[in-house]
Amino acid sequence: MIVVMQEGATEAQIREVEGALEQWGYEIHPIYGVERTVIAAVGKPTMDEGTVVEQVESLPAVDRTMLILKPYRFASREYRPEKSTVQVRDVIIGDDRFVMMAGPCTVESEEQLMTTARAVKAAGAHVLRGGAFKPSTSPYSFQGMGEEGLKLLAQARAETGLPVITEVMHVKNIDMVCQYADILQIGTRNMQNYDLLIEVGKLKRPVMLKRGMSAKIEEWLQAAEYILKGGNDQLMLCERGVRTSETYTRNTLDLSAVLAVRELSHLPVIVDPSQGTGRASMVPAMCRAAAAVGADGLLVEVHPNPEKALKDGAQSITIQSFQALMPELGAVVSAVGKSL
Amino acid sequence: MIVVMQEGATEAQIREVEGALEQWGYEIHPIYGVERTVIAAVGKPTMDEGTVVEQVESLPAVDRTMLILKPYRFASREYRPEKSTVQVRDVIIGDDRFVMMAGPCTVESEEQLMTTARAVKAAGAHVLRGGAFKPSTSPYSFQGMGEEGLKLLAQARAETGLPVITEVMHVKNIDMVCQYADILQIGTRNMQNYDLLIEVGKLKRPVMLKRGMSAKIEEWLQAAEYILKGGNDQLMLCERGVRTSETYTRNTLDLSAVLAVRELSHLPVIVDPSQGTGRASMVPAMCRAAAAVGADGLLVEVHPNPEKALKDGAQSITIQSFQALMPELGAVVSAVGKSL
Amino acid sequence: MIVVMQEGATEAQIREVEGALEQWGYEIHPIYGVERTVIAAVGKPTMDEGTVVEQVESLPAVDRTMLILKPYRFASREYRPEKSTVQVRDVIIGDDRFVMMAGPCTVESEEQLMTTARAVKAAGAHVLRGGAFKPSTSPYSFQGMGEEGLKLLAQARAETGLPVITEVMHVKNIDMVCQYADILQIGTRNMQNYDLLIEVGKLKRPVMLKRGMSAKIEEWLQAAEYILKGGNDQLMLCERGVRTSETYTRNTLDLSAVLAVRELSHLPVIVDPSQGTGRASMVPAMCRAAAAVGADGLLVEVHPNPEKALKDGAQSITIQSFQALMPELGAVVSAVGKSL
Amino acid sequence: MIVVMQEGATEAQIREVEGALEQWGYEIHPIYGVERTVIAAVGKPTMDEGTVVEQVESLPAVDRTMLILKPYRFASREYRPEKSTVQVRDVIIGDDRFVMMAGPCTVESEEQLMTTARAVKAAGAHVLRGGAFKPSTSPYSFQGMGEEGLKLLAQARAETGLPVITEVMHVKNIDMVCQYADILQIGTRNMQNYDLLIEVGKLKRPVMLKRGMSAKIEEWLQAAEYILKGGNDQLMLCERGVRTSETYTRNTLDLSAVLAVRELSHLPVIVDPSQGTGRASMVPAMCRAAAAVGADGLLVEVHPNPEKALKDGAQSITIQSFQALMPELGAVVSAVGKSL
Repeated sequence: MIVVMQEGATEAQIREVEGALEQWGYEIHPIYGVERTVIAAVGKPTMDEGTVVEQVESLPAVDRTMLILKPYRFASREYRPEKSTVQVRDVIIGDDRFVMMAGPCTVESEEQLMTTARAVKAAGAHVLRGGAFKPSTSPYSFQGMGEEGLKLLAQARAETGLPVITEVMHVKNIDMVCQYADILQIGTRNMQNYDLLIEVGKLKRPVMLKRGMSAKIEEWLQAAEYILKGGNDQLMLCERGVRTSETYTRNTLDLSAVLAVRELSHLPVIVDPSQGTGRASMVPAMCRAAAAVGADGLLVEVHPNPEKALKDGAQSITIQSFQALMPELGAVVSAVGKSL
Repeated sequence: MIVVMQEGATEAQIREVEGALEQWGYEIHPIYGVERTVIAAVGKPTMDEGTVVEQVESLPAVDRTMLILKPYRFASREYRPEKSTVQVRDVIIGDDRFVMMAGPCTVESEEQLMTTARAVKAAGAHVLRGGAFKPSTSPYSFQGMGEEGLKLLAQARAETGLPVITEVMHVKNIDMVCQYADILQIGTRNMQNYDLLIEVGKLKRPVMLKRGMSAKIEEWLQAAEYILKGGNDQLMLCERGVRTSETYTRNTLDLSAVLAVRELSHLPVIVDPSQGTGRASMVPAMCRAAAAVGADGLLVEVHPNPEKALKDGAQSITIQSFQALMPELGAVVSAVGKSL
Repeated sequence: MIVVMQEGATEAQIREVEGALEQWGYEIHPIYGVERTVIAAVGKPTMDEGTVVEQVESLPAVDRTMLILKPYRFASREYRPEKSTVQVRDVIIGDDRFVMMAGPCTVESEEQLMTTARAVKAAGAHVLRGGAFKPSTSPYSFQGMGEEGLKLLAQARAETGLPVITEVMHVKNIDMVCQYADILQIGTRNMQNYDLLIEVGKLKRPVMLKRGMSAKIEEWLQAAEYILKGGNDQLMLCERGVRTSETYTRNTLDLSAVLAVRELSHLPVIVDPSQGTGRASMVPAMCRAAAAVGADGLLVEVHPNPEKALKDGAQSITIQSFQALMPELGAVVSAVGKSL
Repeated sequence: MIVVMQEGATEAQIREVEGALEQWGYEIHPIYGVERTVIAAVGKPTMDEGTVVEQVESLPAVDRTMLILKPYRFASREYRPEKSTVQVRDVIIGDDRFVMMAGPCTVESEEQLMTTARAVKAAGAHVLRGGAFKPSTSPYSFQGMGEEGLKLLAQARAETGLPVITEVMHVKNIDMVCQYADILQIGTRNMQNYDLLIEVGKLKRPVMLKRGMSAKIEEWLQAAEYILKGGNDQLMLCERGVRTSETYTRNTLDLSAVLAVRELSHLPVIVDPSQGTGRASMVPAMCRAAAAVGADGLLVEVHPNPEKALKDGAQSITIQSFQALMPELGAVVSAVGKSL
């Protein structure tokens, strides 16, 4: 790490910082500039470096610090230079196939789910999405069908052959969700629910970790680190928009996050334009953009009757829209050298 | 709710919206303007109004909607016009006493905790804070002492008489934390961990709900609603800063949130200037500002040696600073007609 | 507009609001709900509606208001349902041709500009970009070559035939810039420099208005309204990223803004991925995404030696990168039914 | 500056970075760690350091850079360790007197202004505020009375003895505004209108520079640097809230900005709680908080009839509120050892 001392720092103050750094196992290289002293601390400390930073910043006459090492290891490109892939039944996520995950925001009934599942399968989707446990800002909103919904997802898989992705909200439900689901989704509100991250890190089941509502890329990768560190390397990320002051869209979908993760990590990245915009009218175009930017796939909300949806109707596209989207998307996917 | 139709909406489209609204039990008042039709829907719907909004926004030719009723009930001023108070042993939070909660970010050792507890008690603090379970962005940071830390907190309470506030991160630890703590803190990352909210809503134990990192006031009050709806009315909120693009401070402490909650709700509001700024140098002045704006109290991180802290040293003030702060704060508290 | 009264508003308070609304020429439709009264005010007020809102919100017992009419006219889809186009010499912006504007961030020398201009022309660009007057956060940074730079741009146009886009920062330079430039660019810091907007609104010259750093779509369209209202309809917008708390990228490029403008307005939209990301490594992929989402063109910074650039080297792509980008982009442009 | 190379950077790549740094006049100190090489570059470069950063970041195998020197000089604490003050007639801003600037958002009529001016003077205000040129998001809003408004301000000064602060929006009006005003206000939208900054930097007239809507502290101080560099040291800053995703308040007033400026600079800081919250109901409490945090004064919008205001009625307090505020504020000001 690098420590920049304030102008006018005394020799004793500089010595105190150096002493603290040496105590944590760093090799010290002080650089005495005209106006300021900078201390470069080389090596891996014997304590978590984030904590060292906090301690050093508490010392007198310290102006700023800068980390040199990344605050995550297993999630980094340095640890694994080639891209990693996730295998879900016969679908591989992270290679040249652009993976389409589609289905209702929330499972509402057998008819709603089966109609949607058959339609998205026929149109070329690879994975079926559907929520059985739904986080809701309001305690008065529909919270999902629970295990009943999971059973319907399993039934839809049995019929269509599509693997299933669904959200797990709480540690206590992990076992139950694992009985039915192929991919466990960790939602945006749970990106830093560490207990949940630690538990799914112990599984061998594929996991999709959504970005927190206002999470920085680095924090997202640190959350991923919780899962990878536990031994579960069947992990993909999902960009779903961040909070800004814009109110026309529900969130601001950050497609550069796909590229940032590519530069910093080996993990596949899926894009969710439904949550990312909150507007069905924008979903097809943002699907095309996500394909063009090089995402590994999409997570799209499709509903037979959005105007009757019990959840997120405004951002769900119709089955007809989905059917129209797939060939458009195929053209863009081909243009970037992948296949759909 | 109010529905604004697009310009050029046809009669059939307007009728479809009206039909949908009537079906959910609203009484309909269409207003035909020159350029647009607006439909006012009066009454309480038979389904959660947020869901109705989503559905209606999925209908053709709908431009926008506006909720008239607040999306929370028990948390609202309308439900309870007078301020509510929380009683923790003999400390009342929410009346004219300005309540000072102080102590280390994290319990690190008996000596560290007891030294701090005695000092803050002697300086006039009312509640002892200290973390035993600590959420950490990095899986490699110190995660707290766990039950050992809780025992030390109980020991400090036994000696100083100060009630104890500590964070509960996971449902599975609620019982354990309840054995030792007087107030359960729900951290910023867990503001929308609904399972946790529902469980603490079943307790009779006081709870402090921190604002999510980028949560809007309305979402915070909806999170509070989860707890109140469960029957636990011993609830206070805690403003701890929101995310902005500023990087000099860790967060941007939003003191107007204290006023917003006052206008919309009856719940007491505590301010955390340690998390809110991330800089020990700013904590005393922000404590004074929080008192002046009318907060019900403070949550302040104090450490005997911030430069040795295992967590958040950079935002912890020293015992000497705390001792200097209390009389300064007392003067401001008096100036706004309260007592410390 | 819609006015929602607080619960418990008295008849006199409701009457006062109605009176104020009637005075501004609205037709009043009060709706008495069980818990609240809502007043729908129909028609166009005799004063700017934004001001009416402020006044009404100052009256006692008013809870909230909602505008029904859009706060801009000439910029709206309702005013002009079909897309508008901008003609710059023989280049038409806003139809099926995807327009590539490329060149150095800042004109630095004849050699730098001519080399770049020839290269981007040869690779298929349609417009040459280059700054002669450069806004700089720091007063110590290079501020551009001024008129000398404009002359070089004109020279490059004479040789390559490419029309020129360049920024005008100040009213006093409009005449000078008009002598040399084909399109006047209004930068992000000047989106709400009203004097400048009003003056370019009087010209017949094409203008590109960049989105303010944290501007909402509605504010951007209101800024456009200043120009359109003046009579200059040769206007296009440029999305260049908004501020978020992410620090890995310089800004967060908001591609959904392209779609939002499409839904609300008839104006063409260009995307600037150089400013939008601040990272040359991300520019080609974000160019493809902008094409896929349906933007009308791109504004891309290209430099023969980014590591010697006097401005924004980190976000400038090399000539080689630009040459490699064009065919990739062409494939995506074709996939969405346009041509490059 | 510090340059962190990527893992695996070759010797040639490291040598290229060192060469570029040496060429700009730095003394080079490379530090070869186990995983990465870090290059410390000591001294002042012969070119603006921000540009060097951009260039260096364009070189291959560079991961990140960090500036050691602050990007402003005259605005820094290092340049002037003691606080600076601004003298406006007999009012000194920046010492132990807490300065109250109050008056209407916008001058609307002689009666409105004179009534307000007399009232705020009688209640103890030190400076009269009032806009004659008003920036408006909408071109259809009231834009101010222009010179007529300035004359009324001068008349109010003549009668009450209060110095006058008013906004100057455009370079062309500087002379005119200087004829009437004692302090020139640069509004939030103009924080980076460099032409305007440069021109007021040439004056000897006091200037108040408002923070940009989403400006970082560092950018704000760089904007201040434009003015100070020109030779005008009669400069104060004004915090007026930043943009966040919160919608209940118009902006989020960032009181920690007062402290940040104190730590980094010598310039006085005024707080504007009217713009900062957008809600009259919050203004008095935020005034108290600003005093408690240690601001040098306030800028408050007061109107005899906010519900008739032509601008910003919703955030203007009444004369009665202002009269009630002053003694409350006096108590807080005393509590922090200042006088009102």
